[in-house]
Amino acid sequence: MSGLPVDHVAVAVPSLRDVIPLFERLTGHSSSEIETLADQGVNVAFVGPLELLEPSHPDGPVVRFLQRRGPGLHHIAFRVPDVAAALRSLEDAGFQPIDREPRRGARGHRVAFLHPRHTAGVLLELVEA
Amino acid sequence: MSGLPVDHVAVAVPSLRDVIPLFERLTGHSSSEIETLADQGVNVAFVGPLELLEPSHPDGPVVRFLQRRGPGLHHIAFRVPDVAAALRSLEDAGFQPIDREPRRGARGHRVAFLHPRHTAGVLLELVEA
Repeated sequence: MSGLPVDHVAVAVPSLRDVIPLFERLTGHSSSEIETLADQGVNVAFVGPLELLEPSHPDGPVVRFLQRRGPGLHHIAFRVPDVAAALRSLEDAGFQPIDREPRRGARGHRVAFLHPRHTAGVLLELVEA
Repeated sequence: MSGLPVDHVAVAVPSLRDVIPLFERLTGHSSSEIETLADQGVNVAFVGPLELLEPSHPDGPVVRFLQRRGPGLHHIAFRVPDVAAALRSLEDAGFQPIDREPRRGARGHRVAFLHPRHTAGVLLELVEA
């Protein structure tokens, strides 16, 4: 059986501009333009398979993550052919969606998150790319 | 310039057997056999691009990670053609290796870790696969 591929791995940081050169040097990938996802309170840049996230305002979930744990790995995203269908099937299998319906994520893709409570503490994103 | 690909993303858990079926169901990948890395104090199973880690004895680094943060994303590994060469070049670029020389990791691969202090809190592994 062929399984889901990783779309990206997200890293929460206090400042994109402070770490983009570091991750470019480390991975050999060039950074995308910075994109703001206003409803999620983050600015986002992709460096190859890494999605770097910084808070875009002072009370989003990434601010709380940084306060609690400091910068570091934030979530992992798997690529699926159809987010709505994947959500339904995972919910039937006992997983708990955070998003009941797909919403618009970075790069204009349809995405949805699963609650880490049922995935060994891992925040998981599904991306229809 | 083509950059480094992700080799795997590691998740620390208290018990492999409790979570392997969950990640198999979630990702559609089948688990590898469980492997013990005695010098690192972990038992390891791969489910597609995920490396699941459980402590193999009560005083390894993964025990401390679980006590401090609970289960969740532990590190990310990039594939490189030559770990020793990558270590030297990253050290020259200001990154701090945890391993000064490559050592034997899961699946018999040569690996080395970089210190999260200089990588935005992200523990990074290089894998010669």
